[in-house]
Amino acid sequence: MRLDVVTIFPEYLDPLNVSLVGKARARGRLGVHVHDLREWTYDRHNTVDDTPYGGGPGMVMKTEPWGDALDDVLASGYESGAHDPVLVVPTPSGRPFTQETAVALSERPWLIFTPARYEGIDRRVVDEYRTRVPVHEVSIGDYVLAGGEAAVLVITEAVVRLLPGVLGNAESHRDDSFAPGAMADLLEGPVYTKPPEWRGRGIPDVLLSGHHGKIARWRRDEAFERTALNRPDLIERCDPSAFDKKDREILSILGWAPEPGGRFWRRPPAVEE
Amino acid sequence: MRLDVVTIFPEYLDPLNVSLVGKARARGRLGVHVHDLREWTYDRHNTVDDTPYGGGPGMVMKTEPWGDALDDVLASGYESGAHDPVLVVPTPSGRPFTQETAVALSERPWLIFTPARYEGIDRRVVDEYRTRVPVHEVSIGDYVLAGGEAAVLVITEAVVRLLPGVLGNAESHRDDSFAPGAMADLLEGPVYTKPPEWRGRGIPDVLLSGHHGKIARWRRDEAFERTALNRPDLIERCDPSAFDKKDREILSILGWAPEPGGRFWRRPPAVEE
Repeated sequence: MRLDVVTIFPEYLDPLNVSLVGKARARGRLGVHVHDLREWTYDRHNTVDDTPYGGGPGMVMKTEPWGDALDDVLASGYESGAHDPVLVVPTPSGRPFTQETAVALSERPWLIFTPARYEGIDRRVVDEYRTRVPVHEVSIGDYVLAGGEAAVLVITEAVVRLLPGVLGNAESHRDDSFAPGAMADLLEGPVYTKPPEWRGRGIPDVLLSGHHGKIARWRRDEAFERTALNRPDLIERCDPSAFDKKDREILSILGWAPEPGGRFWRRPPAVEE
Repeated sequence: MRLDVVTIFPEYLDPLNVSLVGKARARGRLGVHVHDLREWTYDRHNTVDDTPYGGGPGMVMKTEPWGDALDDVLASGYESGAHDPVLVVPTPSGRPFTQETAVALSERPWLIFTPARYEGIDRRVVDEYRTRVPVHEVSIGDYVLAGGEAAVLVITEAVVRLLPGVLGNAESHRDDSFAPGAMADLLEGPVYTKPPEWRGRGIPDVLLSGHHGKIARWRRDEAFERTALNRPDLIERCDPSAFDKKDREILSILGWAPEPGGRFWRRPPAVEE
């Protein structure tokens, strides 16, 4: 996989040399090219932004540096044999970036990221490149960042760990929250390791029982309870007919109640910790 | 504000020297302390993880290094005059980190982050510190990362930009997606800056009209349309009585239809681009 990032803060992308992504690069699984947008400015001040048409606060990133940069990045990528690029535009106005998006992007050979600053990039840039390559405008969450660089780190990490051969033995997809499988749509429950006692705190007996069925049941219940507590939206999205007796008990203890029609409603959110 | 981060990848946090957060540090608005968790290991291999009780794939981070690290970080913070710490634990099993969380955290004087790797930290660590300080277990989105470090960068940036005096003139809170105000709960629409024509693409006439009312109306409509397209969940959360005639027109063009009870439902999602 080839990754290109165009940014006015190239050093923000240094974590791409570290840890999982760094290792994938070292192993040749990944080529990463970080470009300084200001290399495509031609005035003395290396201007990349200007005031918005129509007025208002903040600055807008200009078409020309982005257009020239993307033309060059595309050309040099194609030249070195890359193909089928996707433009990934991190923006709070995008569609939510989810594990599904990560899986879809991990199947592409070439991703080009355009993290913006200020009020974003002049709209004509996306309009222009959408005629040439697929464009994904994505938002990593409902909060406001100072720029798209942190989002690029997040997206890159979520995507690269899905590439074949990248995850080592110490890591695993299987029980990931948001991963497909028996735990689909449930958050992961608590985990424990040695020593069996720490500062007077033990571990749940069941984990020492050696009884695989009971351990699996306990983990499922803990995952279900945590999901109901922290992500009622995920529970509400479930088909209630998939809830077993223990699930219904947990929901009932947490104050949920079945609606006459059979779907669950939930109590008003509890007081914050 | 004081920030502490305990991690096995200190260099992943280098972006905290860059851009907005770096500037806030340079101005003395922020003190950042990044600690290597392995400094609190005492064996030859600097072991921070072990196999999970109850079996299963992956490794779990051990109680002792985390406990010793957090004790020392808390002690040295208190010693240097910091007070009222909050422990921020990035985990896919946490409650969603939103702009509201960012605002709440920005009002605290001291945040301590514990980004984990592998399958997470032995549960007893959170259980222990929850008896001493407020603990926020937060998830930045519905995707799986290789570790919590990228989440720390995201949370830090979202929080620090809200500190008084940190945002410069080129940036602005006012029209942020997810920011309170007239655009509350709407995504930002497109933005444009000079030149008025680029590669044959002009800008919408209304932005050159000088008519503030029309410009505001156009921006509101664009924001509304983008929200309906990219974040139908935000529209569904709205009270339909707040929709004006133009909003209803836009929804109708996009294939939404009013339900008999007056709430809007939406059509099945369109084919992906």
